[in-house]
Parts: sequence; structure tokens; C-alpha cells
Amino acid sequence: MTLAEYIATFVDPEFKFENLPFKVEEKLFLKNDIITNYNKIEDKIYFLNKGVCQLKLQKNDEDKILDFFFLGDFFSSYSSLLLQKPSDVQITALTNVTVFIIKAQELMNVYQHSLLANKLGRVATERLFLKKVKREKDLLTKTAEERYNDLIKESPEVILRIPLKNIAMYLGIKPESLSRIRKRLLT
Amino acid sequence: MTLAEYIATFVDPEFKFENLPFKVEEKLFLKNDIITNYNKIEDKIYFLNKGVCQLKLQKNDEDKILDFFFLGDFFSSYSSLLLQKPSDVQITALTNVTVFIIKAQELMNVYQHSLLANKLGRVATERLFLKKVKREKDLLTKTAEERYNDLIKESPEVILRIPLKNIAMYLGIKPESLSRIRKRLLT
Repeated sequence: MTLAEYIATFVDPEFKFENLPFKVEEKLFLKNDIITNYNKIEDKIYFLNKGVCQLKLQKNDEDKILDFFFLGDFFSSYSSLLLQKPSDVQITALTNVTVFIIKAQELMNVYQHSLLANKLGRVATERLFLKKVKREKDLLTKTAEERYNDLIKESPEVILRIPLKNIAMYLGIKPESLSRIRKRLLT
Repeated sequence: MTLAEYIATFVDPEFKFENLPFKVEEKLFLKNDIITNYNKIEDKIYFLNKGVCQLKLQKNDEDKILDFFFLGDFFSSYSSLLLQKPSDVQITALTNVTVFIIKAQELMNVYQHSLLANKLGRVATERLFLKKVKREKDLLTKTAEERYNDLIKESPEVILRIPLKNIAMYLGIKPESLSRIRKRLLT
């Protein structure tokens, strides 16, 4: 889904790209590039045009993956941006990635007066909220195997483009446990 | 924090209550009243004027508390409302509670044209998102004792107004474990 399709689908069916109320800059990140690093105060929001990204939380020595992002997702170290505090997460490109970059400072200015920008900000944040709540409920009620099944059903590209050890880190299990789950599902 | 103060603080410093772009109806719930029940499609958003509420997820026989709400919080079975699906959570009053009720259908209509409503919806959703992300990170990186400490620091009213077994359900531990934590902290 392109940004224009996103806005036409979720915000305004009449939307045309030339009516976008803020500038976007297209940028390429290479596989393994760091997009937002730990301790940086986030100053951008990204719209993913191609590729897969991950968002990682540092926990002592053991990292936790909190999110994967795909085509048509907005992403950002959003808590850092909203609170203007150093980021406790790191966003990296898992593949070569192209994004639209929206500068937070410009967006905040546009939010003062633009109905479209506020609708888009509201809807995009609603979708981020839904994703977080779903993850919280799933972690509390489903087994790792059920959550793995959901993941490949919702995002079949996951298994193709994300290393197994990263999927295990997202599910909160050891890579060996994920291998056992996959073997069970294949037989 | 009143609704007018909330909007003046987070949305528009010039805001006056008579400019509210949608109707609110004040309502009293008694302690233990169900505000939104399982399987209902949520059609309201609440602003909490007085008291404490909780949001609970049913998991087989064992319930999980996902959220507490206090004075100045917006709350709702928000995933149900946004997706128009039956609620998998239940919201109840832990004390006598007064709320402002906003009808979702009216809000959706007002969202079409009102800059203020969209700003408010965006900001309120940003704050709900921040709370969810904080909870996810805390569950992954902090012990139950650290999370209990945070809870009483951020919301001192928690320990005064919420039964211990509910706090334990929120922290994801047994009531006996919470009693041990509290004894340790008092000595």
C-alpha cells in the first residue's frame, strides 16, 4: 500500500498526493542500516515503501524485538518523539528499505491548522495502538506456537524475509524452540 | 484534571468548554458496575471525572487486568470501537465513578470536519499508545517489585483505592507474591 492509498483508504477517499499537507523525502536504507539509534531523540516519522524493519529494545545483554514493520506501515521511535526523550529502542533495516521521511518538526507545525494532517495522525496512531493492544493480549493468552501461526498468516513475508532468530526474539522464545515449532507445523 | 483542563493542556490553550465540538453526558456508575461488558460492540468513549476503573481480559478461567483508569483519563473498549468487533475486555467501576460519555457515532461524524475533535482524538490516542508501550517495555525489562514501585509512584491512589488482588492481577503475579513485596518495602 502506498502513502496515497493509505490516506485514500483510511482518511479521505478523495485524496490526491499533491494535496499532502507536509513534505516527504524518499530515502534508501541498506540492509542492517540503523534508522534510529538508541539515545537519539526521534525527530522523524517514516512510511515504509519497500522492505522490512524491526524495532528492538535493549534489555541488559538480551535484546527484545517489539515490532516488525512492512510495506504500508508508519513507524518511528514514537514514544521518544512524543515525549522528546532519548530513545530506548533501535530501529534497523532487515532488508534494503525505501521510506518516505516526514520531519516531526514540520508535522507538529502542520498539526496546528491542517484537518487532513490531524486525521492522518489520529488514524495512524489508532492503528499503532491497535497493534500494541493485540500484541499485549496475544502475549497473555496465546502460546508461542499460536502467535507464530498468526504472524505467518497476517504477514506471510515474515518467514521469507526475517531471520529465524529475529522471529524467535519477537515471540520471546529461544531459536531452538522456534525450530521445534516449525518442524511440528511442517509434519 | 477536568476535560476542559485536558484540552487546554494538550490540545488548545485557548479552549473554552462551550466550544466542545460534541455533546457529553454526565453519568454516575456505582462501585462494581459493569461499564462495558464482554461481547458488546463498544459505542462510547468515557472521560473519567471521579473514581477508578479497571479493564479486564478474560483468559480461560484466569482473568488478566490490562489497565486501571484514573481522574483525567479517557477510556473505552477502544479496539472494539475502532474495529467494530465484540469486546474481548470488560470495563468495571472499582469505586463509585462519574464520567462524561461521548457517543462514538457522534464523534465519528464530528471527525469529518472538526479540527479540534481530530486534534483531541489524536492526542488522546497518542497518550493511550504511550501507556501501552510503557507497559510492554516494563513487562519485558522490570521485575514485579520494580513495576509495583512505579505504579505507586505514578498513581499513589492505586494502593489506597484498588484491592490488592486486583493490583496483583495487573502486575501478573499472585496476591501472596505482592504481599511479600509490600512487606519487604515496608521494612
